[in-house]
Order: sequence, then C-alpha cells, then structure tokens
Amino acid sequence: MISKDPAELLASAQSGSRAALARLLSFVEAGGALHRETVQLVYRYDSAYVIGITGPPGAGKSTLTDRLIVHGFEVGAAGAPLSDIAIVCVDPSSPLSGGAILGDRIRMQDHATDHRVYIRSLATRGHLGGLALAVPDALRVLGACGFGVVIVETVGVGQMEVDIASAADTTVVVTNPGWGDSMQANKAGLLEVADLFVINKADRSGVRETRRDLELMLDLGRPATWRPPIIETVASQDTGVAALWTAINEHRAHLVESHEIDARRERRVRRELERVIAVHARQRAKSLASGPRFEDAVAAVLRGDLDPYRASDELLNFA
Amino acid sequence: MISKDPAELLASAQSGSRAALARLLSFVEAGGALHRETVQLVYRYDSAYVIGITGPPGAGKSTLTDRLIVHGFEVGAAGAPLSDIAIVCVDPSSPLSGGAILGDRIRMQDHATDHRVYIRSLATRGHLGGLALAVPDALRVLGACGFGVVIVETVGVGQMEVDIASAADTTVVVTNPGWGDSMQANKAGLLEVADLFVINKADRSGVRETRRDLELMLDLGRPATWRPPIIETVASQDTGVAALWTAINEHRAHLVESHEIDARRERRVRRELERVIAVHARQRAKSLASGPRFEDAVAAVLRGDLDPYRASDELLNFA
Repeated sequence: MISKDPAELLASAQSGSRAALARLLSFVEAGGALHRETVQLVYRYDSAYVIGITGPPGAGKSTLTDRLIVHGFEVGAAGAPLSDIAIVCVDPSSPLSGGAILGDRIRMQDHATDHRVYIRSLATRGHLGGLALAVPDALRVLGACGFGVVIVETVGVGQMEVDIASAADTTVVVTNPGWGDSMQANKAGLLEVADLFVINKADRSGVRETRRDLELMLDLGRPATWRPPIIETVASQDTGVAALWTAINEHRAHLVESHEIDARRERRVRRELERVIAVHARQRAKSLASGPRFEDAVAAVLRGDLDPYRASDELLNFA
Repeated sequence: MISKDPAELLASAQSGSRAALARLLSFVEAGGALHRETVQLVYRYDSAYVIGITGPPGAGKSTLTDRLIVHGFEVGAAGAPLSDIAIVCVDPSSPLSGGAILGDRIRMQDHATDHRVYIRSLATRGHLGGLALAVPDALRVLGACGFGVVIVETVGVGQMEVDIASAADTTVVVTNPGWGDSMQANKAGLLEVADLFVINKADRSGVRETRRDLELMLDLGRPATWRPPIIETVASQDTGVAALWTAINEHRAHLVESHEIDARRERRVRRELERVIAVHARQRAKSLASGPRFEDAVAAVLRGDLDPYRASDELLNFA
C-alpha cells in the first residue's frame, strides 16, 4: 500500500515512483494540511523550466504539446539532453473532482506508456483561487522530483487561464487562422503575456491575415528587447513544431542572458505571495464570521452598544 | 460655510438642515475616516422603517415611489402620522462620482420642493462592496435624523441590487406584464426576497399571465406565515398605489406581531458585520502585500529560505 506521509512519498517520487508523485500532486490539489506539509518539503528545490501554453479550446494545444515533446527529447533544452518532461493540464472551467483525468488526452497516448513523459490534469473543486495556488506548488513538486522542463497547458483564454499560463518562464499563445473571433474578449491580455505566438492549423486559409493582425498589434505594443516571433504550425502533420521548440529554446536563452528570468521568477513569487495572503485573510474573515464571539458582536450591534466597524476591529484584533 | 465636523453636522441635520444631512451622507458614501466617525455618532439611534423597492429598469419604480409617498402622508405608517420620508436611490451599475443625482428623478419634482420629502442618490466609485456597506450606514444617519420611514430604491435585478433592497423590513418587487423576460436571470433571487409583488403598468396586456406565473411560483415555494400579495398598479394614473401602501402597512404589522422584524434586523446586522469583516480583512491583505516586510518575504521565498505559506503566516501574524 502506498504511504500517506509526504516525506516518504517524496523520497519514492524522487526514486521514480509515479504513483507517489501522483499522490503528492493530489495533496496539492486538495489544499489541506498535507498540501502545506508537501510544500514545506519541496520549496527549497530548484524550479523546473516552465513553458505555458494557452489558447482557446479547439486551437490544437494538445496535439501541439504532444509533438513538441518529441522534438524536445530530440533536441534537448538549454544545450543539455532532456531526460524527462511533465505536462500539467489545467482547466479552471471544468468542475472535475480532482485527480488525473486523461480521457481527453487520447492524442497523447503515444506518451502514456513512455516513462519519460508524465501527464497530469489539475483541477480543484470549482475554487479558482485554489487552482491559482495549486499550480505553482505542483510545479515545485515536479521540480523537486527532477523534472527539468514542465509544460503547463491551460484551456481557454479567460483572465484566470492567462494568469496561470503566464506564470511560466516562456508563454506560448496558440491561435488559429481567423483567431480574432475566438480571442476577442481577452486579446490585450494575451498580447501582454505572449512570448511566442503560434498560428496552428496553418494549412487553413486566413494565415496571412492573422499574421498581419498579430504583427500590427505587436507594432502597437510597447517596445521590448524580445519581440514575440509568430510561428506557423500544422501540429497534426508535425509541420513547424520543431521550429517552435527551437524558438522556445531561444527565448529561454534570451531570458537567461538578459537576467529577465530572475525578474520573472521574482514577479511570480510576488504574485503568489499576494494570493496566499489574500486567501488566508479571506479564510480568517470567514472563520471570524461565526462562533460565540461573532454572536456576541451581532448582539452588541443590535443593542446599540457597538458600531459594526468597531465590532469588526475587535474581532480582527485591530484595536 | 457648512461645518466639516460630523458631530456639528449631525446636530444641524437633526434640527432640520438638509445641507448638513447631505454632507453626512457624502461622508458615508466616500467611506473614509469621516464615515467611521459619522457611524459612531448615529449607530445608537433607532432605525427607520425601511421599505426596499427593486425591479428591472423601466418597470416604473420612480413613478410608483412618487405616488406611494403621497398615500403615505395621507394614511400614515404603523397607525401614526408620517411627518417626513426619505428616499435613497441606489444604482450600483452607475459609475457616478457620488453626491445627490436628481436629474433622473424629474418625475419626483413635485416633492423636490416639499420639505417633508428627502431624496438622495447613493453611488460609490464603482466599488460594490462599498455600496453594500454604505447603504446600512446611510439608513442609520437617516434614522438618527428622525426619519420614520425610508424607501430604498435599487435599479436592476442583479444579486447586488436584490441584496441591498432585501436588507429592508419590507421588500417590494416591481414587475410588469410579461415580466419573465426582464427578470429571468434572477427570478429565484427575487422570489426569495419579495414580501410584496407589484405588477405595474397593469393597463397593458399580459397581466393575467404574469399574475398566474407569480402565483404558481409562490405555490411552489416553501410555505410561510406570510404569502406575498400581488398588487396591480398603474402608477402613472395613481391606480392601485393606495392598496400598495396599505399592503406595506399590513406587512409591517405582520412583522411586528410575529416578531419576525427582530429576526430580520438581526439577520441584517449579521450580514453587515460579515461584510465589514471581509472588507477589513481584504484591506489588511492588500496593505500587507507591499512594503519592506513583504519585500523581505518575497526575497526569502526566492532564496528558498521560506515557503509562501509560512511567509504569509508570518506577515499575518498567524504563527
């Protein structure tokens, strides 16, 4: 029987047990005491290099990721061979009960039997704040287990999906010819986070217009040392995917040379810590809004002995 | 020149100065230190009897309120004459900068020169949490200034508007013939809070169907000691409005006899206190997410000296 102790599980996972790794990620997903215990074990380890892939449903992200991995193993990352790779699939809109949901990853079945590839879906019980907190910790667990590269794939182009994907080192935004319609709602947000654009399904008509639209928007954006390249792919035919992997490696080299990678990781931790504090404060507010002290405060306000602001101060120990 | 001191202003307002009252309500609207000072002056006073009126834009709430007041002065409230009445207009969707916006109350101009009627629009700078907190405090100020009855009119049928209106003692939901379309989105929420239904513009076709719909939904609802009556009005012709005022008085008598009024007011204070605590906690989280201690925590997490949860604990002084 598999252990329930995070430290034992981590040792097993580091020795290659995927069952132990899966359990640690389930702790992170569930977000309780075992989550915190797990984080305390893994936070010291070096982070994996994280590639975020986002785009609207149906853009072909899964197929693209599938092919990308093959090229990753062939070419390696940051000048070194790649021994293994993890794929974290995040679907905030899916009210799944957690655990590894691989049913929708049928196209990845080639890799399902490949021990070098670890595929994991992350979901939380509809609690978005939870997912935003779970993803960085899942990445910590994977880093501690020796994964050098992790791909985080999010479904959808809402602010939440974009936030999660853009917590990556390299963020790839996947579009299709005629992308305008499916991404209109959050074009500015996507443009802001993209390090690379992919026009997938580039064998369809409208590629030239889509590229022109993207170039125009990039021209209008603020100048930067890195201009996101636009890569045309037909993932289903493995066309252009090698070039995408090369571009990812180039972006990584750029981040390292410019020290932008440190700035990004600092920004990521800063945002994460803000979120943790916000969630803790919310939890505290919730727990204060019940129990005998709260009932006393309600009664005091009703009697006119206390105004609600002083009552809140007293409950929060501000006074 | 008018004072800026809440205590002086309250004394003036209690002596009948509408300018002083307006300034106190502006403090509440702005939500700063003067707001808190104002609340500390008024929270001991008895509350006014609060009538909430909600319904979709265009249902005729303003005209109805306008006529209702006339009958209120004629008939009185709770068996006593009515010396004055206040109307608070809340429009959460309006990004107005605050202050008394009476431009949209042209139909009420008869009362604008009537010293017994005080009309005030409440808005906050797009901050919904602020409005939910401002309304109960505005009611406290009006209660402290001797208003026996206050009508709170909200525009729209979203959850926020319904929440605000239903913090009343008697909640009136205004519909029109064929109400289904305009209220579909929040029918259950409206049904939950309604103490009285009005079918205004009842000279139009579709009244019978609308009444049947409402009756059916009431039949399906949980049994209660008070079944919301459905009152047909044509406010523009003053038809049925006297019956509405009578029904409001009857509901008030029911609340008093059944002691439900105390339960409602307790519920109201409970919800208010929950909100105040939540807002305070959020403010605290925000202020903790900047400054040297936060920067130290970010650096410690980046160095791997601290995990984000312990960092948050230390910042929040939980540990």
